[in-house]
Amino acid sequence: MNSFGRLFRVSIFGESHGNGAGIVIDGCPPGIPFTEDDMKADLARRKSGRVGTTPRTEADEPHIFSGTFNGHTTGAPVTIFFHNTNTRSRDYSQFVSSPRPGHADFVARHKFKGFTDYRGGGHFSGRVSLGLVAAGALAKKVASPMVVGSEILEIGGQKDYEALIVKAVDEHDSLGGIVQLTVDRVPIGLGEPFFDSAEALLSHMVFAVPATRGIEFGTGFAAARMRGSEHNDWIKTESGETETNHAGGINGGITNGNQIVFRVAIKPTSSVATPQDTFNFDEKKVKTMVVEGRHDACITLRVQPVLEAGAAIVMADMLLTARMWQETKQTPTE
Amino acid sequence: MNSFGRLFRVSIFGESHGNGAGIVIDGCPPGIPFTEDDMKADLARRKSGRVGTTPRTEADEPHIFSGTFNGHTTGAPVTIFFHNTNTRSRDYSQFVSSPRPGHADFVARHKFKGFTDYRGGGHFSGRVSLGLVAAGALAKKVASPMVVGSEILEIGGQKDYEALIVKAVDEHDSLGGIVQLTVDRVPIGLGEPFFDSAEALLSHMVFAVPATRGIEFGTGFAAARMRGSEHNDWIKTESGETETNHAGGINGGITNGNQIVFRVAIKPTSSVATPQDTFNFDEKKVKTMVVEGRHDACITLRVQPVLEAGAAIVMADMLLTARMWQETKQTPTE
Amino acid sequence: MNSFGRLFRVSIFGESHGNGAGIVIDGCPPGIPFTEDDMKADLARRKSGRVGTTPRTEADEPHIFSGTFNGHTTGAPVTIFFHNTNTRSRDYSQFVSSPRPGHADFVARHKFKGFTDYRGGGHFSGRVSLGLVAAGALAKKVASPMVVGSEILEIGGQKDYEALIVKAVDEHDSLGGIVQLTVDRVPIGLGEPFFDSAEALLSHMVFAVPATRGIEFGTGFAAARMRGSEHNDWIKTESGETETNHAGGINGGITNGNQIVFRVAIKPTSSVATPQDTFNFDEKKVKTMVVEGRHDACITLRVQPVLEAGAAIVMADMLLTARMWQETKQTPTE
Amino acid sequence: MNSFGRLFRVSIFGESHGNGAGIVIDGCPPGIPFTEDDMKADLARRKSGRVGTTPRTEADEPHIFSGTFNGHTTGAPVTIFFHNTNTRSRDYSQFVSSPRPGHADFVARHKFKGFTDYRGGGHFSGRVSLGLVAAGALAKKVASPMVVGSEILEIGGQKDYEALIVKAVDEHDSLGGIVQLTVDRVPIGLGEPFFDSAEALLSHMVFAVPATRGIEFGTGFAAARMRGSEHNDWIKTESGETETNHAGGINGGITNGNQIVFRVAIKPTSSVATPQDTFNFDEKKVKTMVVEGRHDACITLRVQPVLEAGAAIVMADMLLTARMWQETKQTPTE
Repeated sequence: MNSFGRLFRVSIFGESHGNGAGIVIDGCPPGIPFTEDDMKADLARRKSGRVGTTPRTEADEPHIFSGTFNGHTTGAPVTIFFHNTNTRSRDYSQFVSSPRPGHADFVARHKFKGFTDYRGGGHFSGRVSLGLVAAGALAKKVASPMVVGSEILEIGGQKDYEALIVKAVDEHDSLGGIVQLTVDRVPIGLGEPFFDSAEALLSHMVFAVPATRGIEFGTGFAAARMRGSEHNDWIKTESGETETNHAGGINGGITNGNQIVFRVAIKPTSSVATPQDTFNFDEKKVKTMVVEGRHDACITLRVQPVLEAGAAIVMADMLLTARMWQETKQTPTE
Repeated sequence: MNSFGRLFRVSIFGESHGNGAGIVIDGCPPGIPFTEDDMKADLARRKSGRVGTTPRTEADEPHIFSGTFNGHTTGAPVTIFFHNTNTRSRDYSQFVSSPRPGHADFVARHKFKGFTDYRGGGHFSGRVSLGLVAAGALAKKVASPMVVGSEILEIGGQKDYEALIVKAVDEHDSLGGIVQLTVDRVPIGLGEPFFDSAEALLSHMVFAVPATRGIEFGTGFAAARMRGSEHNDWIKTESGETETNHAGGINGGITNGNQIVFRVAIKPTSSVATPQDTFNFDEKKVKTMVVEGRHDACITLRVQPVLEAGAAIVMADMLLTARMWQETKQTPTE
Repeated sequence: MNSFGRLFRVSIFGESHGNGAGIVIDGCPPGIPFTEDDMKADLARRKSGRVGTTPRTEADEPHIFSGTFNGHTTGAPVTIFFHNTNTRSRDYSQFVSSPRPGHADFVARHKFKGFTDYRGGGHFSGRVSLGLVAAGALAKKVASPMVVGSEILEIGGQKDYEALIVKAVDEHDSLGGIVQLTVDRVPIGLGEPFFDSAEALLSHMVFAVPATRGIEFGTGFAAARMRGSEHNDWIKTESGETETNHAGGINGGITNGNQIVFRVAIKPTSSVATPQDTFNFDEKKVKTMVVEGRHDACITLRVQPVLEAGAAIVMADMLLTARMWQETKQTPTE
Repeated sequence: MNSFGRLFRVSIFGESHGNGAGIVIDGCPPGIPFTEDDMKADLARRKSGRVGTTPRTEADEPHIFSGTFNGHTTGAPVTIFFHNTNTRSRDYSQFVSSPRPGHADFVARHKFKGFTDYRGGGHFSGRVSLGLVAAGALAKKVASPMVVGSEILEIGGQKDYEALIVKAVDEHDSLGGIVQLTVDRVPIGLGEPFFDSAEALLSHMVFAVPATRGIEFGTGFAAARMRGSEHNDWIKTESGETETNHAGGINGGITNGNQIVFRVAIKPTSSVATPQDTFNFDEKKVKTMVVEGRHDACITLRVQPVLEAGAAIVMADMLLTARMWQETKQTPTE
């Protein structure tokens, strides 16, 4: 469903070509300085405009609709909304009868019984991730002093990918990529096994983000080819610093104080303007189609800040949850 | 925390060397034939005894403590319990002051404030996964006609791994591996985006299973190096069969009726009897240790049925959830 | 926290004098006709304007921000927002240092560490219930053919209460009341004991509504003075009709097909313009205050449609949940 | 469903005449002294044996199956199990075709599709509340220094009820009653509005307990007949002590530091051995029946400690949740 988190809990909503998109953040501690400006840097990083991103440009102007007062969070739910402005919906109606390969068109047709808002992908659109980035800006403050970082390791299999993207755009095709996420200054003890291990919560969030295909922590899939004697991280200090970090900062599902490291595989955007076969429900037969419209040739570029935001939201939630076993501080009246 | 699922919901408990381990399954439909015998095949697959598994052998005898009557589920919570019998706890007390590299010893020390049951790993032990396998046996029936399958693709990087395991055992070392999971006969429409996409729920479960380091769906990390024109699965029929299955049976977080395919990376067991450095909390300095005790050299062999069980539990839960939008059938009185 | 429901799930937000108030409804089935007009009748019933209600009048104009397309729900989250227009905040700043008896001022001061939006009660304001009424209008459709009804049984202890209200207004005082809720055409089998009995979920919702002090089902507190032989409802038909309905339509936490009946006690509004003592935090001593501002002398009048909405939301959620054990219908492709 | 709580979370299971009944408690802080002996006082208070309670006597011997080590909680799930011993099931099979008035027989028949364990009421039996009492004993320690207390205010409408009970037993009939619950030494700030107000969570729990028909906080239903000027509690001190306590210790859904007070109405036991009419499903007509078997004439006597336990569980959960906004204490390594 459209909510996630135990205590720092986000509820996402919105569509690509409807009135807009947004998010409600529940459980945010009171007293955190937060205004629209605090979201702008991350929102700018998610924006299109660069080579390889869609020509559709939106203002992406966030509006805080609830939960702040005098520039600070109040403890009540924080709602952030983005109006849609630059929508061009005529491109999409055809996909109802002619579902695009690699898209949600076919499954949406079934699950939502023909009532989906198909314009621009509706609720399946990457535009919905705006809310996540907005909430991530607040989550980063809540999770402080933890610091979430990210890096694109490769696009189309290459570290040096600029020319590759230009070529893909020219050929009306698309590329995938790999993003590495890190979290520094992590307290020891976050994560609630058995089921809510740190990896379980982070991966749950990562696979909510459209276009993700894989995740690995620490040495990840390479660990499957290592021996235990190689893979184990030797503990060097009383506060748990390890010589290596094959575990990616997590043991037994609980953060060990070292840097959290994980990598996410992003598939190539499904929307490509090359001819493709699909089943046409009007004509009841397979037909070739070409997907027009404004699309991202390499969504990895724009997913990076979304993944960062998602990671920050999970870290904030794990932090708040881990406090449950602290002693209760007697709040003085004044 | 120790529960998972929205409607078909499992709550796991138990320790390696305590009274036992078990699970409570809530939300199981009434009328499913289920006795202790139904769990035995999967439990046997999880058992030690083969080369590369621990010499500790347990009866692993399941006892249904609630929720069935006359050999069928009643709709009330089903509780399954396993008594511990063959425990040998003297091996473990040392790890309180001398946390084993790669284990949860260090984080448990912090999070549980010194009160952890350290014997055999306590609640962190792989023994806790017994409950998951038991619940999986029931989940497989609930998820029917879906069929969950699995295969070990490689151990220590090799498809042909028998000799490799023998060598690792001889050298007191351990090996990782990769398991592939599949689900066949999947109805179209399971999974509840945005946050509870099919991949999100499956990966959440997979990372609850100890020793998992990575997961990828369909073409997974390889997708990051493909172009959209290659990666998109062309739809060939009205019921959604696709020519290829790069998506692994899931689009937009929702099952598309094709086979679900994902792979899981399992790290090499942390318990190795080679000398390793760690911080000794009694002596306040780094010391070399050798981990004795009875351990699995290749846990991948035993994790395979656990992952299958986990996948079945998630499929059962997604199936029950997806029914929410069906018309309500008027139950006739007789 | 600010969300409720297992499958039909609402997330509420907003403040009295901020930008507005609203709600996000997740899990709503696709294909339900729903526009702003569908909410207006219930919103009108909640409006002020009658004798005994606040002179503050708001347009209470609902805006659907997401989740509908072509006048129908799509299956994506439905967001409804109400802009605030007629706010007059100068009245409220004094209550930070001088918490009003019977209000949340004192507890908010502590819990939210001085960051509460105190204007008009902020997130504690009855204005937040607008979202509930809006969601209730949709829930009533989802819960169809069930019909939620309500009646004010008494105000100030009297069935005939008009004159009583006028008198209370004249004397700057306030009155409580009792509202009776009913649900007709209820399917047999809603409610999920042990913890989510029908009464448990309904009462949870009722006590979320500000100003509620008590709830009783069927014969309620009077049942405590009956004998079993009097209280038991004799079953007269195969479909479960009973001769009497002392149980209020629920046995063992599960609906029995008879009318659900419960009554809710509403306290007199706390805001009264008579002199009252409270602790003044600026002057560190008890002082007498008079609460000015625009208030409802009898909030019972406006809580009635809020309680109805709450009941409808719970019935919708229980209905969707009870479907989990239905057979899965194979959705045909067309 | 059968779990409740956000952080201190209980999962209940078991049947009256099956193997036994029990509970799993997740989220319990580590380091709390807890052995079987800690439960015995409360379990004894729930026992039958007094006039007005069932002649069936059970050992009610609790067994801790997980989650403690060296006499303390470890932070892992605590499981407590009670074996059934004194079961006499032949009495119950008739109620499948002939549902007892006032019982869950009729609704269970529908909801569980004929697979209910009907023996002794199965999962609907009051015996299941054993687990709640056991968990309550632990919750009372977690919630410390809060103190949960209770008192039977009346049975059959009388404060002096001993003779009344004897009479009801003689006449094969049953009586209801009213129990008052209190919580003392409550920190200011527990409860999480909008939906998880302190009253909402407490009432949710209370209506999970079989036989409850009503709940009222503070002055409760009487508040509906008071004026605001009478009902408001004047604040007398900086720490929030009030002159009166009409609010029952809760304002705006949040505890205000005063004593929490609420009353619960318990219906007369449904099992009475007087002739009653019900629909007979074998003969397809209304027939007169007499309910034999071993029953409680006044369940109020035994529900009292169950309600106390439920209140303690909720207080513990609210306490742990309210810590989410505390500063994170840096756990020193030693």
